[in-house]
Amino acid sequence: MRITDYFQKKKMFKRGPQIITLKDCGMIAAFTGLGNGDTVVDCGAGSGFLSCFMGNIVKPNGKVISYEKREEFAKIANYNIKKAGLEEVVTVKVKDINEGIDENEIDVITLDMPNPETVVPLAWKALKEGGYVVGYVPTIEQTKSFVFACEDNGFSGIKTIECIVRDILVRKDRGTRPDTKGLWHTGYISFARKIKKEEKV
Amino acid sequence: MRITDYFQKKKMFKRGPQIITLKDCGMIAAFTGLGNGDTVVDCGAGSGFLSCFMGNIVKPNGKVISYEKREEFAKIANYNIKKAGLEEVVTVKVKDINEGIDENEIDVITLDMPNPETVVPLAWKALKEGGYVVGYVPTIEQTKSFVFACEDNGFSGIKTIECIVRDILVRKDRGTRPDTKGLWHTGYISFARKIKKEEKV
Amino acid sequence: MRITDYFQKKKMFKRGPQIITLKDCGMIAAFTGLGNGDTVVDCGAGSGFLSCFMGNIVKPNGKVISYEKREEFAKIANYNIKKAGLEEVVTVKVKDINEGIDENEIDVITLDMPNPETVVPLAWKALKEGGYVVGYVPTIEQTKSFVFACEDNGFSGIKTIECIVRDILVRKDRGTRPDTKGLWHTGYISFARKIKKEEKV
Amino acid sequence: MRITDYFQKKKMFKRGPQIITLKDCGMIAAFTGLGNGDTVVDCGAGSGFLSCFMGNIVKPNGKVISYEKREEFAKIANYNIKKAGLEEVVTVKVKDINEGIDENEIDVITLDMPNPETVVPLAWKALKEGGYVVGYVPTIEQTKSFVFACEDNGFSGIKTIECIVRDILVRKDRGTRPDTKGLWHTGYISFARKIKKEEKV
Repeated sequence: MRITDYFQKKKMFKRGPQIITLKDCGMIAAFTGLGNGDTVVDCGAGSGFLSCFMGNIVKPNGKVISYEKREEFAKIANYNIKKAGLEEVVTVKVKDINEGIDENEIDVITLDMPNPETVVPLAWKALKEGGYVVGYVPTIEQTKSFVFACEDNGFSGIKTIECIVRDILVRKDRGTRPDTKGLWHTGYISFARKIKKEEKV
Repeated sequence: MRITDYFQKKKMFKRGPQIITLKDCGMIAAFTGLGNGDTVVDCGAGSGFLSCFMGNIVKPNGKVISYEKREEFAKIANYNIKKAGLEEVVTVKVKDINEGIDENEIDVITLDMPNPETVVPLAWKALKEGGYVVGYVPTIEQTKSFVFACEDNGFSGIKTIECIVRDILVRKDRGTRPDTKGLWHTGYISFARKIKKEEKV
Repeated sequence: MRITDYFQKKKMFKRGPQIITLKDCGMIAAFTGLGNGDTVVDCGAGSGFLSCFMGNIVKPNGKVISYEKREEFAKIANYNIKKAGLEEVVTVKVKDINEGIDENEIDVITLDMPNPETVVPLAWKALKEGGYVVGYVPTIEQTKSFVFACEDNGFSGIKTIECIVRDILVRKDRGTRPDTKGLWHTGYISFARKIKKEEKV
Repeated sequence: MRITDYFQKKKMFKRGPQIITLKDCGMIAAFTGLGNGDTVVDCGAGSGFLSCFMGNIVKPNGKVISYEKREEFAKIANYNIKKAGLEEVVTVKVKDINEGIDENEIDVITLDMPNPETVVPLAWKALKEGGYVVGYVPTIEQTKSFVFACEDNGFSGIKTIECIVRDILVRKDRGTRPDTKGLWHTGYISFARKIKKEEKV
């Protein structure tokens, strides 16, 4: 059983709120250089998909603390974390992250929530030097609020992307072409890094 | 220092043959569910970027064995692996993978080489049940050869994608829009899984 | 009433076989520089959408001859041509184009049919110097057959494109973002030009 | 000589300000159903490319009136119009369009200018029932201003698109794939239609 199974099989992971796609999980992991041993704060947990995806990478030495203010979502997330055997790595905290990030020296903070900009000053304090804060939101307006908050709070190397993954049909009998319809947009992903001016890369 | 630094700073990683992009590394990690403890075979090593990227995820319990038939590329790869502090995790083997995969019970095999289709029968034997073989090639013709070889050798859940990442410029003074020019195409990534018929998901 | 109305309202145009999208009509018009006075051969007529679209541009001095070998499609095309008031401009000819193109000194030949490569030698003869032949097919394999036939028959400036049009939702209340789902692929459009070697641009 | 030649050959058309691409010309023609006999107002003329493209379609019965407030651009536009043999169809008017649109019963108004939103009320008056106003701008912020102005001024069927055209390399010797780099973004194109409430389609 691999982490991809939990994403693909409805039976495996319960789906509560809208879940993140594997493609966006992959972009977050790649552009933050997520690896073993990292300490990650994820908010909101939602159904826990992103937390589990990251937990599977940072274990056994790292950990994911997943903030979720709604009890009912926290329950779904906890169910999925247990299902994936990641309860040693991923912890759900039922708390509004705007009330404070309890952890510090964090490597990566992922914000998959409607107003990630309010968390940016807290993220700056909680992050390790060189750490990343990531905002994942569907609209341009939310992206702007997050990016400008990062600029205003001293973050560097700010970068916004959209990741489009297209299925290509490769068939012996009917030829090769991209699939007719597909997912055009999930969200914009913005990355910002806590780097002191004199050390900027 | 994070793995992303080695990708971004020319000083950090030596660049020999064409290197893989972070976006494609991210897609490979995401769609194979790469995580701690995985055993990976990567071929060809090239400059070692993909091997290092995956090593950073599978460590400390997993390992990456990186096949490379050209001595001079193996040297560059080894230099970069050492630079990234991954010599405990990533091993370069100077060998043509077509002569045989020495390892078995492998979780993921990544083939970033001109003719990955020739390796498919070997991959089937070397993979663990449920493991993935991944072909990463620039053209449709190469993609077809790889996909058809996977079909002919019993693989399941075969899927080809292209991943397009677009930079979005978010600027207080000059407005928001996608960057004018960008990378339109690197390669098609095909995934296939070793799953026994009766267990197919 | 504008030509766009016939495309959008189901009541206006009858739809028989798969119809071409407005985006692809636009690309064909743009990349061939379609304009008033042009003589166009279109095959197959299908429901007559592309013929009507082009007829609306080339009228009153130009004309569109639309080949269609299936009687039942020719009827639908004729119904739509009449509906759009283009019967002076667009003529449907019930004939297999492989049996010969009766017209000559043609400006643009559009081939929206499964095997456009068989028509390429006929297109060379029928086209005016500087004229365009256009192949519109869904798969890479068909595209290759058409493009290679154009190369082998002396055509110049051969170019294949795919045109992707994405709807952007712009909303006062819910923000701005691309539409979630959409049309990822219709067909590849290939353009080739009849230009004598010494005059090639 | 076809209109596409003027776009491709530097010798043919003088290039002053940034010119519009053929793909965007094609989208504007397709989504407004531009055809013979249409009366078009274009602003600003710039180098006159879009005006010439449209003039080539609407002639001989239609006309394009091209507003341009900068004398030096008007000169370039006039040079190109003459070059393309379109002086009977396309007229450049050296005037700030915000001071008023002199024409009425217009079919299509195209606004390729930094603040098209200021022209929207004038466009409503000048357009024929069923006519289109088109805004073509590079950023999301400009797009929003234009779209909201259209909403506020009674326009219907408002639609914003981005058109991405990708070159596909089809080669006997080196295989088939999209071109590595390309044009990722030119501008967003927004369409709005003057339709009375009771007639809305």
